[in-house]
Amino acid sequence: MARTLWLDEDGRLLTLDQTRLPFLREVVELATCAGCEHAIRTMQVRGAPLIGAVGAYGLAFALREDAGDAALDAARASLLATRPTAVNLRWALERVAERVRPLPAAQRARAAWEAACAIADEDVECNHAIGRHAAALLAPLRRADRPLQVLTHCNAGRLATVDHGTALAGIYALADAGVPVHVWVDETRPRNQGASLTAWELGERSVPHTLIADNAAGLLMSQGRVDAVIVGCDRVAANGDVANKIGTYTKALAAWDNDVPFFVACPVSTIDAYTRGGDAIPIEARAEREVTHATGRTAGGELVEVQLSADGTRAFNPAFDVTPARLVTALVTERGRCDASSAGIRRLLAALA
Amino acid sequence: MARTLWLDEDGRLLTLDQTRLPFLREVVELATCAGCEHAIRTMQVRGAPLIGAVGAYGLAFALREDAGDAALDAARASLLATRPTAVNLRWALERVAERVRPLPAAQRARAAWEAACAIADEDVECNHAIGRHAAALLAPLRRADRPLQVLTHCNAGRLATVDHGTALAGIYALADAGVPVHVWVDETRPRNQGASLTAWELGERSVPHTLIADNAAGLLMSQGRVDAVIVGCDRVAANGDVANKIGTYTKALAAWDNDVPFFVACPVSTIDAYTRGGDAIPIEARAEREVTHATGRTAGGELVEVQLSADGTRAFNPAFDVTPARLVTALVTERGRCDASSAGIRRLLAALA
Repeated sequence: MARTLWLDEDGRLLTLDQTRLPFLREVVELATCAGCEHAIRTMQVRGAPLIGAVGAYGLAFALREDAGDAALDAARASLLATRPTAVNLRWALERVAERVRPLPAAQRARAAWEAACAIADEDVECNHAIGRHAAALLAPLRRADRPLQVLTHCNAGRLATVDHGTALAGIYALADAGVPVHVWVDETRPRNQGASLTAWELGERSVPHTLIADNAAGLLMSQGRVDAVIVGCDRVAANGDVANKIGTYTKALAAWDNDVPFFVACPVSTIDAYTRGGDAIPIEARAEREVTHATGRTAGGELVEVQLSADGTRAFNPAFDVTPARLVTALVTERGRCDASSAGIRRLLAALA
Repeated sequence: MARTLWLDEDGRLLTLDQTRLPFLREVVELATCAGCEHAIRTMQVRGAPLIGAVGAYGLAFALREDAGDAALDAARASLLATRPTAVNLRWALERVAERVRPLPAAQRARAAWEAACAIADEDVECNHAIGRHAAALLAPLRRADRPLQVLTHCNAGRLATVDHGTALAGIYALADAGVPVHVWVDETRPRNQGASLTAWELGERSVPHTLIADNAAGLLMSQGRVDAVIVGCDRVAANGDVANKIGTYTKALAAWDNDVPFFVACPVSTIDAYTRGGDAIPIEARAEREVTHATGRTAGGELVEVQLSADGTRAFNPAFDVTPARLVTALVTERGRCDASSAGIRRLLAALA
C-alpha cells in the first residue's frame, strides 16, 4: 500500500485528493507552497499529522522561490493560518524553520526539503510505535465470545497521517496479529470522514467494520456493544484536555457513562505544553454549506452536492470540540501510555527533554 | 396554518408527505388502512402523536371494509407492527378498539371514525397545554443579555403531531408571547428530520434558528451557549426512562455535564406504565441505506439520493435510544411538569385515574 504522501521516481510530491474519496482515487501533485496551502484549506489533505508534513513541504517549496528571512517568516505565517486547531502544523513549521534559519540562504531550500522528508518518515515510525502501544492496551479488553469491538470517530487512519494512522494504527496492529476485531465507524458529520475515509481504508485492509450515524454511538455503548473507543487528536493541552473532531466530546461522555475505556492516540508532537487547558484551544468554524449540503454519488455514478435543508436555513459549523481530561482513560503516544493529566504530561515531556 | 393531518370539505383525510419536505409540499390522501400503514412505515407521517392519530384513522378505515372482531384484531395488529417503539400508536389503537368493541358491527366504522377524530382534536388541545407549561419552565432560564437559547433534537414540532408539536409547542408559545428565543436545531442523522422538518417549520413561523450537526451540540453546551434542551419522546417507561430519536441520550449527557436543564415534552399517552424501565423498550432498527445514503436537492432542483460511503460498506441503523431518567430534568405533559421518576409518574397517573 502506498503512503498517503509520497515522492515518485522523479521526486515529485504526491498525495490523494481526499475530497474525492471513496468514489474517485485522484492523485494530486503538490509543487508549490500555495499548492500545499490550498490542499490543506480545501481538505484535500487533512488529519493533524498529515497536515504537519504537508506544511513542512510547503515551507520547503517557499524557500525554493525566496530563501530570505522575510520570505521564511511570511510563508510560515501563511501556512500556519490554513487550519488553526491542530498543533502538529505549528510544530512541523517550527522544526523546519529552526533547522534552516542558521544556514546561509543558498542552503536553506535543500535543508528544508530534507527536514520535511524527515518529518514524514518519522511520522510513519511514530505511528507504528503508537499502534504497538495501542494494541497492547486494546487486546486485553476483548471478550472471549466475540471480536474486540472498537468504536472510532472521524478518520485517524493512514489517510490522516503519512502512513498507518494514529487511532487506527492499533487496530491494524491487532488485525495483523490475527486478533479478531470489529470497528464501529462514526459517520462524522458534517464532512463524513468516517463514512467516506475510515470505512474505505478499513475495507482496503479487510478489517471488519460497520458504519453508524454519530447519534448511534451512545446506544451501542449503553448496550455493552463497545469494548473501547479510540480516536485521534488535533491538540492536547498541558492539562490533558483534548481537542479533536466535533462530536468527540459526546462520545467520550457516553464512554464515561458506560465504563467504556476512552483512548486518545497521538504523537507527542500533538501535545501543546503552551496551552494550559482546552478552553484556550482555538476552535475553527467552517463553512455553513458543509452542514446544509452533502456530497455523494448518484445512482448514475456522478458525484454531486445536494442541499439537505430548506432554502435560507443558516447553520453553525464548529470543526472541533474539547474533551475534558477527566473523560480520557489515557493518551497513547509513540512513547507508550500517558495519563491525560498535568502530571502525566509533565512526566512524559520531562522524559523526552 | 393548516393542521398536519386534516379533513377537507369532502371529508377526505389529508396529510403532507414528510419525505418530500422541505423541498416539495405534497399533500397525500389517506383513504385505506393499508394506506395509513404505508404512510407510517415509509415515514410520510412520523412523530409519535401523529402516528397515533393516523393509526386510529387506519383502524376506522379497516372497519369500513369489515367490522367483525377478527378483522378488528387483524387491522389493529397490522397497524401496531408498523413502528415498534412509540407507544402512542398502541394507546390510540386500544382506545379506538375499546370504543367500538361493545357496539354492533354496523355501528363500528362510524364510531371508530369519531374516536379517531377525537384523538386528533385532543392532540391539538393537549399540545397547546404542553406548550403553556413548557413556556413557563423555559422563560425563567433566559439570560438578560440574549434571546433564550434552546436546543432541540429531531422534529417534535407541529409536523410530529396534529398541530403545535410537543417540544416546539413551548417555543411557539414563547415566540407568540414576544419572548426572544433562538433554537439550535440538531440535524438529526440519519434521516435529517432536524434539517428538513424542524428548520422548515421554525422558518414557516419566523422563529430564529440555526442548524448544527448533531456532533456540535456538546461543544455549544460546554461554551454556555444553550440555556435549555427540550425534546419530544416516543415512550416513557414507568421509571422515567425516555425512548426518543437516536442521539437524544448523548445530548442529555452533554446537558447533564454542563448543568443545562433537559426537558422531555410529551402527552400523558406517551407514558407506558407497563414498561418498567428503558431496557425493556423495543428499539427499532431501520434500513442500512438511511445511513449510507442521503436525499437532497441538486443545484438543478432535482431531488436525488446520493451514496455517502464506499461500495459494500455495511451500516447499523437503530432509530431510537434510551435516556436514563437520571439525566432528565423533568417531563412536561399537558398536566404540567412531572418528575422523571417512578414516584413522579405514579403521582401523575394516580391524579388522572
